Amino acid sequence: MIDNQIDNSRKKMEPVDYNSLCPVRNVLDRFGDKWSILVIVILGDTEKLRFSELQKAIGDVSQKMLTITLRKLEADGLVERKIYAVVPPMVEYKITERGLTLLPLIEDLTAWAEVNMQGIQHSRQIFDIKK
Amino acid sequence: MIDNQIDNSRKKMEPVDYNSLCPVRNVLDRFGDKWSILVIVILGDTEKLRFSELQKAIGDVSQKMLTITLRKLEADGLVERKIYAVVPPMVEYKITERGLTLLPLIEDLTAWAEVNMQGIQHSRQIFDIKK
Repeated sequence: MIDNQIDNSRKKMEPVDYNSLCPVRNVLDRFGDKWSILVIVILGDTEKLRFSELQKAIGDVSQKMLTITLRKLEADGLVERKIYAVVPPMVEYKITERGLTLLPLIEDLTAWAEVNMQGIQHSRQIFDIKK
Repeated sequence: MIDNQIDNSRKKMEPVDYNSLCPVRNVLDRFGDKWSILVIVILGDTEKLRFSELQKAIGDVSQKMLTITLRKLEADGLVERKIYAVVPPMVEYKITERGLTLLPLIEDLTAWAEVNMQGIQHSRQIFDIKK
């Protein structure tokens, strides 16, 4: 949108203390990515899954990226890694209690995405045409 | 956690249709990153901001990354870019109506992060010691 006049109602704003967001950023940094969100949604939906099952469920995630994602989620106590001492060793992943408290928020986000998807795709087309 | 017995209660699960998540992934792909979340939180909190003000508010984002983030958010119709035809040209960013509908969900997420931050940091320390 192009205006020919500067909006003179623009006032000097009070400085907002965004440094207070810092610890939150540190946490968002970890689960604020597509793969983490998908892993939490999928594990929230199943009792437990092996690595290969999880990889299959996601579809297009590389082994390396899924390994990194699971390790971060495990470190954050959102996902539990259970090793069974059998031969060959078996590893299963399940969501933790903490992960379960995050789940409804992520479900809200995916519901929002579903509702707004068409509108967003429409906006993207208009944006591409304008360029 | 290491178990010496395989949990025999493990049943074959019904396959879940995660392909139905695909369009949602496409949307999450866009705003499911730290910078997008921060831009939406900051613009949701202010009337409008210039690029330099936004960059200052975030703190450690590079000019390039902020440019990319704003362009994606603009394409998705979450942020509006307003150009004032003055010399030198002035550009301001503000959140859109659609962006405002996303804002409470992101605020829920940051509130969750605040509540769980200490627990997560504690988990990370334990995880690092175990390694």
